[in-house]
Amino acid sequence: MNTIDETSVIALGGLGEVGKNMYVITHNNEILIIDAGVLFPEGDLLGIDFVIQDITYLKQNQNKIKALIITHGHEDHIGGIPFLLQAINIPKIYAPKIAADLIKKKLDERNIFYENYEIIDNDYTIKTKYFNVEFINTTHSIPDSYAVVIHTPNGTIFQTGDFKFDLTPIGPMADIHKMAKIGNKGVKLLLSDSTNALSEGFSKSESSVDGTLNDIISRHYGRVIIATFASNIFRIKHIVETCKQYNRKIVVFGRSMENTIELALNNGLIEDRSQFIDANQSKNLKRNEVCILCTGTQGEPLAALSRIANGVHKQISLLNDDLVIFSSSAIPGNADSINKIINKLYLKGVKVFTNSEFNDIHTSGHAKEEELKWMIRIIKPEYFMPIHGEYRMLKKHGQIASVCGISSENIIIAENGDVIKLKNGKVYKEGKEAAGDVYVDGSRIGDIGSIVIKDRKLMSQDGILIAILNVNTLTRKLLIKPNVIARGFIMVNENQELINKIELKISQIVYDFLSKSIYNHTDLKNQIIFELLPYINEITGRKPIILPVIMEINQAI
Amino acid sequence: MNTIDETSVIALGGLGEVGKNMYVITHNNEILIIDAGVLFPEGDLLGIDFVIQDITYLKQNQNKIKALIITHGHEDHIGGIPFLLQAINIPKIYAPKIAADLIKKKLDERNIFYENYEIIDNDYTIKTKYFNVEFINTTHSIPDSYAVVIHTPNGTIFQTGDFKFDLTPIGPMADIHKMAKIGNKGVKLLLSDSTNALSEGFSKSESSVDGTLNDIISRHYGRVIIATFASNIFRIKHIVETCKQYNRKIVVFGRSMENTIELALNNGLIEDRSQFIDANQSKNLKRNEVCILCTGTQGEPLAALSRIANGVHKQISLLNDDLVIFSSSAIPGNADSINKIINKLYLKGVKVFTNSEFNDIHTSGHAKEEELKWMIRIIKPEYFMPIHGEYRMLKKHGQIASVCGISSENIIIAENGDVIKLKNGKVYKEGKEAAGDVYVDGSRIGDIGSIVIKDRKLMSQDGILIAILNVNTLTRKLLIKPNVIARGFIMVNENQELINKIELKISQIVYDFLSKSIYNHTDLKNQIIFELLPYINEITGRKPIILPVIMEINQAI
Repeated sequence: MNTIDETSVIALGGLGEVGKNMYVITHNNEILIIDAGVLFPEGDLLGIDFVIQDITYLKQNQNKIKALIITHGHEDHIGGIPFLLQAINIPKIYAPKIAADLIKKKLDERNIFYENYEIIDNDYTIKTKYFNVEFINTTHSIPDSYAVVIHTPNGTIFQTGDFKFDLTPIGPMADIHKMAKIGNKGVKLLLSDSTNALSEGFSKSESSVDGTLNDIISRHYGRVIIATFASNIFRIKHIVETCKQYNRKIVVFGRSMENTIELALNNGLIEDRSQFIDANQSKNLKRNEVCILCTGTQGEPLAALSRIANGVHKQISLLNDDLVIFSSSAIPGNADSINKIINKLYLKGVKVFTNSEFNDIHTSGHAKEEELKWMIRIIKPEYFMPIHGEYRMLKKHGQIASVCGISSENIIIAENGDVIKLKNGKVYKEGKEAAGDVYVDGSRIGDIGSIVIKDRKLMSQDGILIAILNVNTLTRKLLIKPNVIARGFIMVNENQELINKIELKISQIVYDFLSKSIYNHTDLKNQIIFELLPYINEITGRKPIILPVIMEINQAI
Repeated sequence: MNTIDETSVIALGGLGEVGKNMYVITHNNEILIIDAGVLFPEGDLLGIDFVIQDITYLKQNQNKIKALIITHGHEDHIGGIPFLLQAINIPKIYAPKIAADLIKKKLDERNIFYENYEIIDNDYTIKTKYFNVEFINTTHSIPDSYAVVIHTPNGTIFQTGDFKFDLTPIGPMADIHKMAKIGNKGVKLLLSDSTNALSEGFSKSESSVDGTLNDIISRHYGRVIIATFASNIFRIKHIVETCKQYNRKIVVFGRSMENTIELALNNGLIEDRSQFIDANQSKNLKRNEVCILCTGTQGEPLAALSRIANGVHKQISLLNDDLVIFSSSAIPGNADSINKIINKLYLKGVKVFTNSEFNDIHTSGHAKEEELKWMIRIIKPEYFMPIHGEYRMLKKHGQIASVCGISSENIIIAENGDVIKLKNGKVYKEGKEAAGDVYVDGSRIGDIGSIVIKDRKLMSQDGILIAILNVNTLTRKLLIKPNVIARGFIMVNENQELINKIELKISQIVYDFLSKSIYNHTDLKNQIIFELLPYINEITGRKPIILPVIMEINQAI
């Protein structure tokens, strides 16, 4: 009997979180990487721009890497590529056309040179020594999305990518027949998108959204301002076509929206360039001949919609018969910022439509519970592992698989870094690779750790107080009165009395210390922090970071 | 014909926001204040503990103030009292019993002495020269909630307080007959709670929640851990009674929960003190004989539930047959923190119930659209002014009044500070008093302005970099190499190369400056910031606050 070496699946990102997707498939000396996304950090990671994967495992096995395969062009699947390419050698990137265009733009902006792209589609296949890879067209909220099928020596792994089922899509239908065929041949392990596992029922079709938008746009007598996700090209395509039908020209605001439309025009997804005009041209048109398409669905303070709502946009002011449509949903954590913008729009007397149960002006790109069941039933895998989601989503998705006939010992709920092995017909968890969070702040990667974040948090709460001292280390005397500078603590000029008190307290601490102990820089520093913090807390109720700066003068006067 | 002087209504807080409620009613030399709440600041007011009212108007008219009237004991209605009492003289506080107990506790904790309380109830009345005040029992998520009816020389003002209609309440029924009677006699102006104006339908009854909780508690075979709002005494009362029925003793965690239960026991709202045990005693019981009642519904990191979920609670560890119930809803802005706790609970293998469409384990204390219509129809006022809500809620509540037959010119949507006048049978907006936000941080009020907040924001993003220089102002030379300290910017020890580069750059800037210009402290400081910031941004992508500290030495060596 032949023994076959094991195949491994390791998520370096995407489990226990929505973001920074990266799934690694290994067999002997071959590695395939699926996706390299970023995670947009939530509130408590102050100042961090992105979170990316810990790629220690890939660095250690760099010579085995055959390719990076991209399922679609969303940031949580491609945003990490610039960082990955700077760290390790990736011989080839296989990506759908739209994703490849977005990756190229991203790398250009960062002056990273790379050209080993292969464009995949529904018929494309990749063959390596151990792997045969196929792609299946799926439906998602960006065109050109694919599931990845990897035939390994230990059976077939089916990775859904991000998907939903939409039986009346705006773009092409998902290739459910190809899925069925692969399901029929036998799939060892299904890895499936869990983002909406907690939502019951089916997701709405993009067509129903388009119907509602069509109604609203056709009826309104003033300007229509639509904010939507820039990557949702099908939505944008429909808005453009509806505007054409009702004789509205389109003004585009926001860099990512402009980029998308350029990309869609270049790829033939949107056809009529003459539909677009600039803000100046729109002034010659009647109000019901204008549609403004912009970024800012999440209330981002610098996005076009926020600037319009705040009355600080350079090219456009709100008119009282404007209608603003949020063709979008709130990403967790953004509800407050969005509400602020909506309140401002109401204050200006403008009508606002947001998505709700009664108002189909947005739909999710991720399968809900019933669609997830469809995927499981079509692929009918032997083993099931939910991916792409927070732990409670993975857990619920496991329960969904269970009611669809997958036996519970064949359902694998894993964490980033867990090694999932396929061997001797079985799939099981064994071992662990490094898989943590790496912070990107500005142009530097990984130089921010938890201490820096903690300092940022402390300073964001109570600021920082810097105590500057001049100490003569020989005479052990303060040369001049201590000086206090503060930022984020108090307005120093307007609270001179308090500052005087603090400076006096510092003098006392230093005097006591110097009269008792031998001078030592670190000890004095610690003593100041030790005594000053409770004192300040007592008189102000605050706990700023205290930073003593001691200038030593060594003079025997 | 007699001319009557005008009566005015001014909101110093509560319009355009959910929080810091304060409504002022004035007639000649008499002022009544209704409520004095705080606003819990959202994410962007870094480090601010509370926002309170600008009370300039009250200070200027201090001698006219007759009383502070409290509608109920929630923080957004009583939280500002300690600050108000420290700033101005309040001759009398009229409050329901529960609210008065909470106020006393609050003032005790802050060592503020006050004793001029009068306890109001459904039959209580207040008479001043110009005002006759009555109270009407309402239903809300804390016992002892009242609407306030103020008969003025210009007609009756009806202020609902916070309310809902619950026809199967746990506590007493709202006195709808008294409302109807007052409505029949004629109300000039209705001021009504708008918190849930955006929610359609009716709110659920507290009884339906209690039914569900009863089901869950009776069926579970392990411990039950329930987190709920500490002020919702009716909910807690029911949990205590259900636990008694199913032979579970209760362990209480969290200071506010302990305080509430003590208060409820003292007021006879909860009767059986023997139902409560401490954590040690619970160890002798079977798991299905224990219920843990705790704070932390909003994922607050220091609350009992978070510490339990994080495994750092001193007295209790999770067991795998524990069941955690969030008998609560997410306050806007807290969804992320709550989800983190839920994910941690799932990771520990614990069952979690949260409120949803299908799971009645919480209900709001505020009237939804249909209940708001009931209030308007019962009171049938001549004029209507929505209060207690963000602008879009006020606006929607205005529309609700309009469909209930209030003519649109009699609907007043106002902002904090707007003076609403009642005169000659009419109600209209005229004039404006100061009404802004005052920040409380620690124990100090109003010393934090927008600059301090801005500094906190900057430091929370990219930290602070302090450049320490020793300059001989006579020889115009650097005495020693500049020294850089940073907090929240980078880990200095682990990035020595970068720090060296920055120190070198500072040397160059100072050298160039000193060789060209006459030495001037401020100019040198500005020059360093001016040149160093773009340099650091270029090499790191970050923009820390730069704080040069220049030590001047004045020596002719």
